[in-house]
Amino acid sequence: MPRPLSLHEDRLFPADPGVRAIARRLYGQVKDLPIISPHGHTDPAWFATNAPFSNAAELLLAPDHYLYRMLYSQGVAMDRLAVPSRKGASSADPREAWRLFASNQHLFRGTPSAIWLAHVFSVVFGFDVALEAQTADLYYDRINEQLATETFRPRALFDRFGIEALATTESPHESLDHHAAIRASGWGGNVITAYRPDPVVDCEHEAFAEALGRFGELTGQDVMSWQGYLEAHRIRRAAFAAAGATSTDHGHPTAATADLSPPDAERLFQTIVSGKATPAEAELFRAQMLTEMARMSLDDGLVMQIHPGSFRNHNAQVFARFGRDKGADIPQATDYVRALKPLLDRFGNETDLTVILFTLDETSYARELAPLAGHYPILKLGPAWWFHDSPEGMRRFREQTTETAGFYNTVGFNDDTRAFLSIPARHDVARRVDCAFLARLVSEHRMAEDEAGEVAVDLAYNLPRRAYKLDRKPARELAGAG
Amino acid sequence: MPRPLSLHEDRLFPADPGVRAIARRLYGQVKDLPIISPHGHTDPAWFATNAPFSNAAELLLAPDHYLYRMLYSQGVAMDRLAVPSRKGASSADPREAWRLFASNQHLFRGTPSAIWLAHVFSVVFGFDVALEAQTADLYYDRINEQLATETFRPRALFDRFGIEALATTESPHESLDHHAAIRASGWGGNVITAYRPDPVVDCEHEAFAEALGRFGELTGQDVMSWQGYLEAHRIRRAAFAAAGATSTDHGHPTAATADLSPPDAERLFQTIVSGKATPAEAELFRAQMLTEMARMSLDDGLVMQIHPGSFRNHNAQVFARFGRDKGADIPQATDYVRALKPLLDRFGNETDLTVILFTLDETSYARELAPLAGHYPILKLGPAWWFHDSPEGMRRFREQTTETAGFYNTVGFNDDTRAFLSIPARHDVARRVDCAFLARLVSEHRMAEDEAGEVAVDLAYNLPRRAYKLDRKPARELAGAG
Amino acid sequence: MPRPLSLHEDRLFPADPGVRAIARRLYGQVKDLPIISPHGHTDPAWFATNAPFSNAAELLLAPDHYLYRMLYSQGVAMDRLAVPSRKGASSADPREAWRLFASNQHLFRGTPSAIWLAHVFSVVFGFDVALEAQTADLYYDRINEQLATETFRPRALFDRFGIEALATTESPHESLDHHAAIRASGWGGNVITAYRPDPVVDCEHEAFAEALGRFGELTGQDVMSWQGYLEAHRIRRAAFAAAGATSTDHGHPTAATADLSPPDAERLFQTIVSGKATPAEAELFRAQMLTEMARMSLDDGLVMQIHPGSFRNHNAQVFARFGRDKGADIPQATDYVRALKPLLDRFGNETDLTVILFTLDETSYARELAPLAGHYPILKLGPAWWFHDSPEGMRRFREQTTETAGFYNTVGFNDDTRAFLSIPARHDVARRVDCAFLARLVSEHRMAEDEAGEVAVDLAYNLPRRAYKLDRKPARELAGAG
Repeated sequence: MPRPLSLHEDRLFPADPGVRAIARRLYGQVKDLPIISPHGHTDPAWFATNAPFSNAAELLLAPDHYLYRMLYSQGVAMDRLAVPSRKGASSADPREAWRLFASNQHLFRGTPSAIWLAHVFSVVFGFDVALEAQTADLYYDRINEQLATETFRPRALFDRFGIEALATTESPHESLDHHAAIRASGWGGNVITAYRPDPVVDCEHEAFAEALGRFGELTGQDVMSWQGYLEAHRIRRAAFAAAGATSTDHGHPTAATADLSPPDAERLFQTIVSGKATPAEAELFRAQMLTEMARMSLDDGLVMQIHPGSFRNHNAQVFARFGRDKGADIPQATDYVRALKPLLDRFGNETDLTVILFTLDETSYARELAPLAGHYPILKLGPAWWFHDSPEGMRRFREQTTETAGFYNTVGFNDDTRAFLSIPARHDVARRVDCAFLARLVSEHRMAEDEAGEVAVDLAYNLPRRAYKLDRKPARELAGAG
Repeated sequence: MPRPLSLHEDRLFPADPGVRAIARRLYGQVKDLPIISPHGHTDPAWFATNAPFSNAAELLLAPDHYLYRMLYSQGVAMDRLAVPSRKGASSADPREAWRLFASNQHLFRGTPSAIWLAHVFSVVFGFDVALEAQTADLYYDRINEQLATETFRPRALFDRFGIEALATTESPHESLDHHAAIRASGWGGNVITAYRPDPVVDCEHEAFAEALGRFGELTGQDVMSWQGYLEAHRIRRAAFAAAGATSTDHGHPTAATADLSPPDAERLFQTIVSGKATPAEAELFRAQMLTEMARMSLDDGLVMQIHPGSFRNHNAQVFARFGRDKGADIPQATDYVRALKPLLDRFGNETDLTVILFTLDETSYARELAPLAGHYPILKLGPAWWFHDSPEGMRRFREQTTETAGFYNTVGFNDDTRAFLSIPARHDVARRVDCAFLARLVSEHRMAEDEAGEVAVDLAYNLPRRAYKLDRKPARELAGAG
Repeated sequence: MPRPLSLHEDRLFPADPGVRAIARRLYGQVKDLPIISPHGHTDPAWFATNAPFSNAAELLLAPDHYLYRMLYSQGVAMDRLAVPSRKGASSADPREAWRLFASNQHLFRGTPSAIWLAHVFSVVFGFDVALEAQTADLYYDRINEQLATETFRPRALFDRFGIEALATTESPHESLDHHAAIRASGWGGNVITAYRPDPVVDCEHEAFAEALGRFGELTGQDVMSWQGYLEAHRIRRAAFAAAGATSTDHGHPTAATADLSPPDAERLFQTIVSGKATPAEAELFRAQMLTEMARMSLDDGLVMQIHPGSFRNHNAQVFARFGRDKGADIPQATDYVRALKPLLDRFGNETDLTVILFTLDETSYARELAPLAGHYPILKLGPAWWFHDSPEGMRRFREQTTETAGFYNTVGFNDDTRAFLSIPARHDVARRVDCAFLARLVSEHRMAEDEAGEVAVDLAYNLPRRAYKLDRKPARELAGAG
């Protein structure tokens, strides 16, 4: 007999009956709110073409580095898991890959992947037995059957998931054709883009030269000159804004910022495009570009997101064979207090600029991020990110930031995912964990329950809408605001 | 209808009924103990002159950077909050400032400020409705009325609060006239000073030259010579001790210590007073002075406190307009294991010296501070400090230090505050959080309840009294000591 | 009346009745499993000679730096606690030392020492009153009486404790005679060794030159030549494997690894043995040797353990008088993400190599170690170590590693102790804390109870057996493996 699969209605709530009852009531106020997904990595082609998804392995396993890295860590070759390499698609039979995945579910015990998968399997696909070796084929076939139906096409799922707004992420050298197609299609789904300039900013990125070339073509600017390069950014930012973008995103190895004099910045830029930059110069240029982006944001209103601190492509062999984003990005200790000072000295006291900070280094929550966000007008804290987008991670985020930054210097949840089908699961986890945290505060008489209810609604809906300026449709009033 | 305001008798206790019952019993043993406040920043002039406080905004809002920085972080100008600038008092109408504060109370949800304010409003001023936009004027008027009465004068509040000892903090170049006046007044309140030499030690402090000049005048020493400078410290330390001081306090950017040879120390000093010191030399001199202060403490018995790790005045614009202590001090990662070694190599094994360590970097609790304090005879751990003087912060302090350092290498609570009216609230929070932690240990059968009761009393009363040598009046016996 | 001593059957379980009931059921599945102790520091002479232990102070106090460092931190001289110095045995009367220890038990409240001692006193020695001043002599006499009996000899205790395998730790220059004697004795206890080459790798170790000389003698190799030195390692590793070793162990100040070219490695080695190495060269050589050891492990199958991050012998005076391992080792911040890269670039993707990582820097759990172990096939996470081998420490380990690395990239518990009598206590604590953590996951509907039961058994028994290759006797099936 396979194990049963069911989602308990009290999952992720504290065990104490009194606290759990509070959490339940708070969650009741937020569980059906629309999903605001202001930052993520879904593929706009899905919504542009609305083509059916292929099969369980290629949809759920092969693109999800949370899943295959765990099996890889236990000695399972990535080829066997249908993960594509630089040479192209894997030659693995997707059904065999799925069986291998199914028979290793115990590896995910205690991980957020287990929670998300259970939600997807139960709510999206309607399974009532767990995925394991003996149910692998049942799953594989039934998922594939459903994917072939109209109700599992991308737009139908988007509507079914109750998504009010969904941002994808594109780079300046990339076309926005899919976004144009979405808008031209007459479908009502609010899918927008976000401006991620890393490939044309980071000269250590393997695609820098090519991206820069395409950047120049798309904008008609001489992107080998500093002024032309900056103008090209302005042009693409405007195009992205026209495609709905309300934000930019910057994924740097560190949070370093710089505020060079214009001549120094120009000289540095010439070194960068010469192809002869040292690692220190590459870092300084990334740092300077954060300040340049902030300057442009003051003009065009795009909200900045900074996602620093990942040592990308740590595994040289995996990078060589499989390329980037293969579960081999490792967080590193990240300083903010000195790193951000140049940008803050220049723009920290502006009231028309928003910079949302993320971290992979939880030690900075209470020590640096909450004190910075609890003081500087431009700073807000993004939610627990990546490895910390999990029940324990979210709980630590609230425990370690709230006392100094409060709730209102945070911006609600980001799912930040490529795994489209998991979006409702991820938002549900965030809402449950926030309600659990609030329920504890209520139970310890640190907040009244009506206040906690307002905060829960603000975290789930109002704050992300406001912080990311996603208020084209009428917003609910921010409950707690005076 | 405004929200009701009431302090629940079980606030800050764990929700589980069994654990809560234990916490209640433990708290019953400490809630009425006298307050020992061995480190803080109240103004001795209040107790010397016993003049009435002015008004709600100037007493409770304008001096409290915990409060106005939160509003500033949300874009509210500090001028509008009655915060004085370098040019003098704010031109804001204090009632308007108060209204602005009142209408933004939601920003403080989940913060210790909310807990302290609720205590002050409820217990000190007797309100039974919460502060919000519609009660702003009620609060403003009723607080001001009460402040004008005899029972709200500083000395009356001091007595009402049950304070057994209260230390202020002064610097060597400052007069101790207010302390002399307090003693001469015949009032029985035990208000003492503490020796904070930073302004005459830190040549990067903006008032260094002026403070050094005044230091020389007050002591009659040639403070431009190394020997005269050291002698001036000895003279002022003696004067402070005569004004009741039992401790010194050192607020350096790092915990660096040094143990230079006398000729090297003298040469460094000459560089410092020449005004040409590099940042590294300034840092080395601060480091050397910690060791010099330890040497003097071995002679005169003053307990040393080291408060390192704050990047002061991080916001250049705010510092330029408003000066220091405006909510713009940001913690930074702080090393102790290498930083303290020179001082420890020299004096770490003394049994007649006490050095109390604080941190803003919670990562050092379990990794460095508890192992150091759990070994070196001179070291004790100060309580959770500043950003961490909060329910979650205090809990983390106990969870992360107790298993290695025990309770008896800690020194009870410091309120460390300028906000005189919040002192009972802060001590009450500390007592409740410690009792909650102890109750968990008891409930998990890690400690007997009678032992936990002894520890609770020691943390609330005996340990701070003993660690800070505040035992002029007969002390209760340290319950747990053999 | 002395306080009673009893071990509550629910100790260390969460207070909530529902969660506690789950924890109890899970613990019921693991409490009687055999003890696997794959890493520790017991003395093989005990099991070789099977001589009776001497007395309470010399067995329980004088060798246990967890205990005497706590008293030392409160000003009690180590001489008075029977701690031997470099000059030899302490002149303290062991009974007086014991009394001093007994009268300071309050210092251990809230520490794991208190839990371990209670277990030893209650379960091993049968006391029902607590150790305190008034029971010091009762304890001293009764312990000594029991130690003189046959049932308290080392082998009898080993059998009574239900130990299935116990690893000691020896260095390459040390004889394995005791292990040979154990095997020759016919006693069935499975006592094995582990290969700890630090004294012949770390040229900053005070015994390096002497150890290197002995290393050459034992192997007949020219250990002053790089090839001879490497060959000597191979010879001793083989001898250790023949004495049952399944692992090596490396206790370096940092986790640095290096992968030098053979000529560079040889040149570096010559500098090391010349006695003129700088600290940076000493560090680089330790780093290179981790990679050399990994290379040898690929050949001989020994599992590598890396225990980095201790600043050894921090107290210069204590080191001068008493030598190493005297409670004066202080953890320091430890990087893994850059430090391990050279070794990982070379061997990280091997499926026949296991490297078990430990840390004293808990900040690396979620930030670096779990992401590394959750990706690289060779990496596994050792349990919470040393200062963190405690209820709170173990809980943080699970909370901070599980969501990214899962349970199956961890290796169960190590007691890592010199205190033989505390081994059952330590394993019992680990089992209870793991069951408490799992019970919380079950109660929050994050894992089914049957899955949690499998994980509990795997953590207590199957994972350490498998990770350390202690499967000479038939292993129970790894419950959760597919």
